[in-house]
Amino acid sequence: MTRSHRRSGEFALIDWIRKRQSPSKRVRVGIGDDAAAIDVTKDSAAIISTDALIDGTHFDTGVHSPRLIGRKALACSLSDMAAMGCEPTVFVAAVALPRSATMGFCKDFCRGLEDMMGEFGVELIGGDVTTGDTPLVVTVTVLGRPKDRPPVKRGGARVGDTVMVTGTLGGSLRGKHLTFAPRVAEGLILNRDFRVRAMIDVSDGLAADLEHVAKESGVRIVLDAERIPISRAAKDAADGDAARGLRHALSDGEDFELAFTLSRTQAKRLEHLQPFDCGVAAIGEVVAGTGVRIRQTDGSLARLSHTGYEHGLSR
Amino acid sequence: MTRSHRRSGEFALIDWIRKRQSPSKRVRVGIGDDAAAIDVTKDSAAIISTDALIDGTHFDTGVHSPRLIGRKALACSLSDMAAMGCEPTVFVAAVALPRSATMGFCKDFCRGLEDMMGEFGVELIGGDVTTGDTPLVVTVTVLGRPKDRPPVKRGGARVGDTVMVTGTLGGSLRGKHLTFAPRVAEGLILNRDFRVRAMIDVSDGLAADLEHVAKESGVRIVLDAERIPISRAAKDAADGDAARGLRHALSDGEDFELAFTLSRTQAKRLEHLQPFDCGVAAIGEVVAGTGVRIRQTDGSLARLSHTGYEHGLSR
Repeated sequence: MTRSHRRSGEFALIDWIRKRQSPSKRVRVGIGDDAAAIDVTKDSAAIISTDALIDGTHFDTGVHSPRLIGRKALACSLSDMAAMGCEPTVFVAAVALPRSATMGFCKDFCRGLEDMMGEFGVELIGGDVTTGDTPLVVTVTVLGRPKDRPPVKRGGARVGDTVMVTGTLGGSLRGKHLTFAPRVAEGLILNRDFRVRAMIDVSDGLAADLEHVAKESGVRIVLDAERIPISRAAKDAADGDAARGLRHALSDGEDFELAFTLSRTQAKRLEHLQPFDCGVAAIGEVVAGTGVRIRQTDGSLARLSHTGYEHGLSR
Repeated sequence: MTRSHRRSGEFALIDWIRKRQSPSKRVRVGIGDDAAAIDVTKDSAAIISTDALIDGTHFDTGVHSPRLIGRKALACSLSDMAAMGCEPTVFVAAVALPRSATMGFCKDFCRGLEDMMGEFGVELIGGDVTTGDTPLVVTVTVLGRPKDRPPVKRGGARVGDTVMVTGTLGGSLRGKHLTFAPRVAEGLILNRDFRVRAMIDVSDGLAADLEHVAKESGVRIVLDAERIPISRAAKDAADGDAARGLRHALSDGEDFELAFTLSRTQAKRLEHLQPFDCGVAAIGEVVAGTGVRIRQTDGSLARLSHTGYEHGLSR
């Protein structure tokens, strides 16, 4: 299985597409966020998000059970809805099946979808099944709605905000990428009770995903190396090497935790209240500037690149 | 390129899934129609349809231009919205890209989407781009809304209705499957001005698609062999053999015309008015019973199977 990080070419393509569109007034949130939002009536919006998962990239049919693959296919889209602080309601699933797929495989895959449906109260309302010379490619499109508060975009971070994250990070490929619980309830609570200003789910890796928040918000995000919650799996993968463990936490994809910014006052309240079983931690702050930086234990700032840290950057 | 007809196993899977669901009250149209419909508020519904297109099945990247492929990807979903008699508004596109895909290919593909967007006034509001060991798989999910009248389902045909179809049928693989115009405007007019009772777009072949209408409506559909509008392409493919031409018209997929039923009175009015550039023709009637039958020139009834006609069936 390859790493499911998006590649720079994919981002470049999305940017190119986005620049060519002129969203109409009905589009409240358009291309370039975890989900889109459109007005359905004057007073109600529909939130929509779509995710394609490919065998060999996001799961491995040679290793993983069809039930877990089905579970993940829906969970990834629910995580996008969580990142908007909105409530998922229904979904459609389009499945491109290899000719070798058996009915038993397909049924178990559906049972995996149903596991998630039961847990999150979402309904399957339609889809498409088609067979071809293809690996299994599953595209789930979920619809949701705002509850209490408007959707939380990536672009709302303000200088002075605190950056926080749910759960622990890194090493997701050791198992969590298949079994994670999308933070839907947490996203709704963060939106309603803590007025989070920007939010994203960690799918490409914390540093890469926060780059989007920084860019969309026109700010810099500075993370404190010491405060990043490193998962057990990342520590195991790092074999006791703390710096490697941190790199896993910062750059591994598919944690599906929520990273978000909110006012310092709300952040303190959230840290104190700790309302989530998965935990929530302050990991940095929003300052003027661009990009994401890591404040290391010696106080210096570094940037995470694909191959590790890039030192010596301007502060 | 293989024929893009759905296989019986795919239908069996969809039936199996459908039977396991218990749609809630918010679901106005669920699994097993051209699109699903859910209540967004008391007075407004969202229509949603998703379609996956696979390289080698629905198009051939070795032969067809990326622009035409992009065009088709959106057109197929618009055709589903047409079949509901509803207005498409926005869409999301999830693209699974082979590692060999170039930026130029992707941009031309997007230009194909844009061709359709401009023509039909729909907006791209989000999507997903991901790369892997896969052929090009494109999943477009379109949202729409009812306009004037509720969505037209497959299950509304009544005994005594006339069966009609837009355009001409057959031989779509000779080109039309890439360049067809989804009958969006026609579907809206049929719904509003002619109160069509059941409607489907011809994607798997006229006979196969009308089987769905018959099944969902609990009726039999009897088509008149002499009245099926056979396309120029089907005639060419049949090389002057009238029976072969008819078979193409009845069984070729991807015509993306609208097949529908309506009262005899409305049908006569529609035939007389001929409001569509593509034409519209009465091709049969709805009677008590099950399945689809073809009334041949000698008055006998036949059923179309995968290999041709099945004769000697009970009338």
